[in-house]
Amino acid sequence: MRKTARFGVSMEQDLLQSFDKLLKKIGYSSRSEAVRDLVRKRLVKEEWEDTYKEVVGVITLVYDHELRELTESLTSIQHHFYKQIISTAHIHLDKHNCLEVLIVKGKSAKIKNIAEKLISTRGVKHGRLTTTTTGKKLA
Amino acid sequence: MRKTARFGVSMEQDLLQSFDKLLKKIGYSSRSEAVRDLVRKRLVKEEWEDTYKEVVGVITLVYDHELRELTESLTSIQHHFYKQIISTAHIHLDKHNCLEVLIVKGKSAKIKNIAEKLISTRGVKHGRLTTTTTGKKLA
Amino acid sequence: MRKTARFGVSMEQDLLQSFDKLLKKIGYSSRSEAVRDLVRKRLVKEEWEDTYKEVVGVITLVYDHELRELTESLTSIQHHFYKQIISTAHIHLDKHNCLEVLIVKGKSAKIKNIAEKLISTRGVKHGRLTTTTTGKKLA
Amino acid sequence: MRKTARFGVSMEQDLLQSFDKLLKKIGYSSRSEAVRDLVRKRLVKEEWEDTYKEVVGVITLVYDHELRELTESLTSIQHHFYKQIISTAHIHLDKHNCLEVLIVKGKSAKIKNIAEKLISTRGVKHGRLTTTTTGKKLA
Repeated sequence: MRKTARFGVSMEQDLLQSFDKLLKKIGYSSRSEAVRDLVRKRLVKEEWEDTYKEVVGVITLVYDHELRELTESLTSIQHHFYKQIISTAHIHLDKHNCLEVLIVKGKSAKIKNIAEKLISTRGVKHGRLTTTTTGKKLA
Repeated sequence: MRKTARFGVSMEQDLLQSFDKLLKKIGYSSRSEAVRDLVRKRLVKEEWEDTYKEVVGVITLVYDHELRELTESLTSIQHHFYKQIISTAHIHLDKHNCLEVLIVKGKSAKIKNIAEKLISTRGVKHGRLTTTTTGKKLA
Repeated sequence: MRKTARFGVSMEQDLLQSFDKLLKKIGYSSRSEAVRDLVRKRLVKEEWEDTYKEVVGVITLVYDHELRELTESLTSIQHHFYKQIISTAHIHLDKHNCLEVLIVKGKSAKIKNIAEKLISTRGVKHGRLTTTTTGKKLA
Repeated sequence: MRKTARFGVSMEQDLLQSFDKLLKKIGYSSRSEAVRDLVRKRLVKEEWEDTYKEVVGVITLVYDHELRELTESLTSIQHHFYKQIISTAHIHLDKHNCLEVLIVKGKSAKIKNIAEKLISTRGVKHGRLTTTTTGKKLA
């Protein structure tokens, strides 16, 4: 079992009131959980700024599957980085548009590079790299 | 087949040079493709600012699967919003940590609400909503 | 004097350790101050999502002062929104480039509109709207 | 006078239509200007990712001037970094709250460090670093 620590936070009453109101709106069960979330979010931001840290990312691509050679290009890039790409999910949004979601893991600089390559491929309409975490140092 | 239009862009030579240098670094095959990407990115941002527009999003959650009741809570929320949740992928990051990736589609306000509910669930270490698109108006 | 409240936060020891390390690196004097900052940052984000809330913003514009009519255009837009523009600072970056920093206050939708108008003016090389706060509900 | 280059962009008609609609809404006078803005925005993002590039930033701080020692702390930090801080503007938001806007210039890593130090100072309610540019390579 994980060890839990406890510390006190002092806060102006007005600020605490605004915070509580927001937590209720979002649906948090406790202030502790909300504070932990803010802290973890800040730490994940830090992880990605360190070029050599191992991170997890999600690359989302929206493209038209009818475009000749696009599927081939994307597949070829993905095979080249097979060590970093853990899994791929594919959704048919409509007759033309696909959404492809890749889960990737590796050094942050490498992951950014893979995302740039895929997103800049001709025919990809929209692409994003979502920066998330291996979860290891986050409790 | 889709109709293609063509228009001219005038740009200071220094600026164009910097642009070309960046495109080469990223790996773009042409300026047109790079400009289209910038334009589409801007339009997707706009789509999400309109509360009633149908959008596509990707919700990523990192959590510890051993936490009691967490899996149940997440499943229960997901069933409640089954109309918006198109698909779910699940990855075992290590012995403790999971990554869950949900593809969601619906009005932007609704999608934001679902993401907030899932991310604020006790035990979710990190969560993000990635804003992407149905691709419909983007060519 | 403002009333201060106090509450306890429970956190896994690993997480707290990572948090403490980050605080030290940044230079925070206490955990309380760091938590308050995270909370206030989150609340300011919320303020800006509410179209009718009064917010404070900072608009930064970089432009070439030699471009004919640009200074006139910018001045004319600024006079039109004199009620929202509190102050303007102007810096000569080099022989050609100026930085203009406008402090603005008003409803968030209005402030966004003013920023868009100024940033899209021909000759403005780079512009940004920084979302900050009146500070009123933040302690 | 600056030399201007011209190049053609091909784009699907639907996409161009959506783009034109957005430009009209924002108030752009021409597609060229809008494309140049998108390009420059992308380049400024790149400038900031390079730790050693000289950049211009704007630091905004909201704080309560009545807090003892805060003004002293902020002044002391600012004097320490006098080489990077070009100018400071100060606005009285209400009886308690001040907005201070600092224009800073230097290597991006240094500027980020100054911003972190100021924003983490006890009593600063909200702080942000806005990343902008010297404008030199942007036309």
